[in-house]
Amino acid sequence: MTITLYDLAGMEAERRFSPFCWRAKMALAHKGLAVDTVPWRFTEKEKLPQPNAGRVPVIVDGERVVHDSTAIADYLEEHYPDRPSLYGGTVGRALARFIQNWTETVLQPGLIRLVLLDIYRHIGPADQAYFREDREKRFGMTLEAFVGDREARLPQFRASLDPLRRTVERQNFVSGEAPLYADFIVFGAFQWGRAISDFDVLAADDPVRTWRGRMLDLFDGLARRAPAYGS
Amino acid sequence: MTITLYDLAGMEAERRFSPFCWRAKMALAHKGLAVDTVPWRFTEKEKLPQPNAGRVPVIVDGERVVHDSTAIADYLEEHYPDRPSLYGGTVGRALARFIQNWTETVLQPGLIRLVLLDIYRHIGPADQAYFREDREKRFGMTLEAFVGDREARLPQFRASLDPLRRTVERQNFVSGEAPLYADFIVFGAFQWGRAISDFDVLAADDPVRTWRGRMLDLFDGLARRAPAYGS
Repeated sequence: MTITLYDLAGMEAERRFSPFCWRAKMALAHKGLAVDTVPWRFTEKEKLPQPNAGRVPVIVDGERVVHDSTAIADYLEEHYPDRPSLYGGTVGRALARFIQNWTETVLQPGLIRLVLLDIYRHIGPADQAYFREDREKRFGMTLEAFVGDREARLPQFRASLDPLRRTVERQNFVSGEAPLYADFIVFGAFQWGRAISDFDVLAADDPVRTWRGRMLDLFDGLARRAPAYGS
Repeated sequence: MTITLYDLAGMEAERRFSPFCWRAKMALAHKGLAVDTVPWRFTEKEKLPQPNAGRVPVIVDGERVVHDSTAIADYLEEHYPDRPSLYGGTVGRALARFIQNWTETVLQPGLIRLVLLDIYRHIGPADQAYFREDREKRFGMTLEAFVGDREARLPQFRASLDPLRRTVERQNFVSGEAPLYADFIVFGAFQWGRAISDFDVLAADDPVRTWRGRMLDLFDGLARRAPAYGS
């Protein structure tokens, strides 16, 4: 049975830019599960199936509704044990949590200082009004000010990728010879960036860029085929 | 047969402060292997068994000499497969590399800005002369200047621990319910700090401190019993 995924979309329905939804899409593809995605916008909270937390991803698998990307990955791992593992065992699952926490406390906060305004440019008028008000309140400044020094911030952002860079210099994927959920977590952040921004966050010769290219090739180019900027 | 470990020591022979040697000692204890440690000082390069890279840890296991903490962990995992695993499998080994790279590009560089001068205070005169010259050349300033603003740096250092903090808030160890080599890598850095410095790098209520306490309790308090400062 096909799983339904509610997936954050821009003004163009095919432009999908949530890092958390990309985690879920890569995980579903890794498990080889068929999925129908439903484009969903920030201001369509009433359109989500219950239960939800007002955010995506949310999946519907038959009778079951699961929300939150981590809960979705755990659900898929538990309910589809005959499919390829997302974690490679309990230790792999535990260590992936460190990489998730690095992604959410270092990588994503760094990226948002570079691309926040580009999100605004890719969403419709109703979403724009919501997004500007919500994010300007959260960050205590205008969207324009929030990313205004992004050229100056870029060297520091790139330096913050050192743990990732050194890892993928020495092995093909974060998870080793083959990609697993830890790779999907990190990749989701980069795919979010490239889905809505032409700002080149990675230098041309960065090993992180080479790894990102390997990720874009997975699953017949699932992420590469999606509307996005750059290589 | 007992393994011999060459272990960096201070002026007091029992004060052992190399983060890399602590990785090896915790790994040997995890494997349940008997070890004799040989105190070794920075200026005793000619006393190391061959081959070596002029640094410790170096282990001697019968006929075999292995140097470099990562090579030692891999050697132990391969040669003692009947003992408890250090990695929990190939995925665990790959993901531990990310945590190692975070430790070596974020945690250890952050710590050294807090404790470098304290190393100097714990080593003998010949080592002091070598250490001051070598490190002042490497860092382009005096040891005193290098750590002179450590109080001001402390908040930023503590913030840099967010990925670790969030992980050990939610699970007992970096590796999950039980500690594995990824924990030993991170712990080695903290044990290095506390072995030679009374500067309190962790706040009293920091979950990282609670995790460090769990690490200090391992192997009948192996690291807690060693000469060090604080809890």
